[in-house]
Amino acid sequence: MSDLPKSVKLKEVGPREGFQFEKGAIGLQAKIALVDALSDTGVSSIEFTSFVSPKWVPQMADAEQMVAGIRRAPGVAYEAIWLNEAGLERAARLRDVLALRPMFSAAGSDTFMRKNTNRSVDERLEELPGWAGRYQKLGMDWLDVGVMAAFGCNYEGDVEPRHVVTVLQKTEQQANACGSRLGGIGLADTMGWANPLQIKRLVGAVRERWPDTPIKLHLHDTRALAIANIVAALEMGVDCFDSAVAGMGGCPFAAHQGAAGNVTTEDAAFLCQEMGIETGIDLDAMIAAGQLAERVVGHPLPGKLKSGGNLATYRARARPA
Amino acid sequence: MSDLPKSVKLKEVGPREGFQFEKGAIGLQAKIALVDALSDTGVSSIEFTSFVSPKWVPQMADAEQMVAGIRRAPGVAYEAIWLNEAGLERAARLRDVLALRPMFSAAGSDTFMRKNTNRSVDERLEELPGWAGRYQKLGMDWLDVGVMAAFGCNYEGDVEPRHVVTVLQKTEQQANACGSRLGGIGLADTMGWANPLQIKRLVGAVRERWPDTPIKLHLHDTRALAIANIVAALEMGVDCFDSAVAGMGGCPFAAHQGAAGNVTTEDAAFLCQEMGIETGIDLDAMIAAGQLAERVVGHPLPGKLKSGGNLATYRARARPA
Repeated sequence: MSDLPKSVKLKEVGPREGFQFEKGAIGLQAKIALVDALSDTGVSSIEFTSFVSPKWVPQMADAEQMVAGIRRAPGVAYEAIWLNEAGLERAARLRDVLALRPMFSAAGSDTFMRKNTNRSVDERLEELPGWAGRYQKLGMDWLDVGVMAAFGCNYEGDVEPRHVVTVLQKTEQQANACGSRLGGIGLADTMGWANPLQIKRLVGAVRERWPDTPIKLHLHDTRALAIANIVAALEMGVDCFDSAVAGMGGCPFAAHQGAAGNVTTEDAAFLCQEMGIETGIDLDAMIAAGQLAERVVGHPLPGKLKSGGNLATYRARARPA
Repeated sequence: MSDLPKSVKLKEVGPREGFQFEKGAIGLQAKIALVDALSDTGVSSIEFTSFVSPKWVPQMADAEQMVAGIRRAPGVAYEAIWLNEAGLERAARLRDVLALRPMFSAAGSDTFMRKNTNRSVDERLEELPGWAGRYQKLGMDWLDVGVMAAFGCNYEGDVEPRHVVTVLQKTEQQANACGSRLGGIGLADTMGWANPLQIKRLVGAVRERWPDTPIKLHLHDTRALAIANIVAALEMGVDCFDSAVAGMGGCPFAAHQGAAGNVTTEDAAFLCQEMGIETGIDLDAMIAAGQLAERVVGHPLPGKLKSGGNLATYRARARPA
């Protein structure tokens, strides 16, 4: 296990994934309270809202109010997402208080890409120059490329690592052709298909081709393997993961009613603590934020540590026989 | 990962751990229906009741009725547990239909052993000759030794692998002194302290000392690491695990209210399926048993696959682009 990183970055995406997922309306003040609690956990980045059309995602209609309402802690990057030009324009207007990232998403599955964006992956790549240009105007000459369904797809089945590498190569060529570079690679297990062996295969294949490009994993716990998948990635030296406090979010696919969503932040932070890997996160504060998240959404959330408790607390109290 | 076993035995302990844990009374017929459903999953052994005093565990007062009521499928070992001589006598009367195992439990923590049995580990070992004699009379000249709290203890903190090896050495010496041998070693993470690195350390230390003795792990998912811990154990060649359908059970410690119990059978079987390891389990039948378990106990249970679904189903339906 010599490739285990010394420190890991967990990027908190719970508010963005979680609020959007909830059926009932959650008040602005409750949302802000959760983001403020997360600001006190030591986490270094929080993705907390989406600039998307209120017509499609009414839960995110308050994006600007969220940005205005949250308390900004020093050293924390406050991030948001957008899916179209209008969304980026709304976010860019707030760039003095938001950390903008030049996101571009592709997918390992054409069918999934079509269902999400009404475009094949190749058609999506035709839009890349437009995005590269917009980001360049904002001073960013690189793209952070996220590959959705990088491990498998409910519609197309298993996704081969060499196919993901091909998609990334095409993306990089397109980016280079319009004066941008590949900044970072995100591999998303959007529908919970990954297992530890496949994590190693895909990360290995991507690293082989892009040895110096940072890799971030976005892992869903739909089928209980997310933490084991993180361990496999850590063993490959991956040091950046998306995660959601308390496991907020869930799986938006109808066939997965009640299935788990993103890997839980405090559970992943606990794993790192126990394996001697630094996260910068105050685990007790993150557990408290997880408990708050559960109160805010008003129903049980899947994270385990908020019931199981931090072993550091038991160690401090323990009396060796 | 060259030490991954080709096949793994998952021993179903859900009914025994789960029914005992439930606050509300569950009817005999419902309990039997769940065991019967498990009999059709291909699982090779089911621990389904306890011969314990109805005064202490009223939920298990129907042990004999359970034995009489369940359907016995060919090739399945039906097991039960006992904690004292009276319990063993009750089980032994039914030995033509029950698979008896010569169980003997010790612990990695004196405090935990005292809280469970009112004896220190050394005092517990003084009782070994009596147990060895009883099992010998039943034709079994070996002991299956289970070490509870083998990874850590809420009262005493971390448990060092060398301490567990010492406890096992003392146990083996006692067994040998009265004409029995060490048949198998069970390592239980009773309070959810294990992490993947420690699994490898303890399994390595035990294997080093007893290279040919089968090792079984009993892992609780209190802090979300159970599946990752199984992966670590598989990488060390461990091929036998206790597991509970749907994650029945939970954690009996007051401080862990709502915490998860045993690792979930269908989630562990799914992990094996995806890693190419045979379990003999029909995963769809086990998922159905998990859904039945949830109906029987009348509240949500933590297993993920019963919502997430078997990837084999999606693969069969998938249309590659």
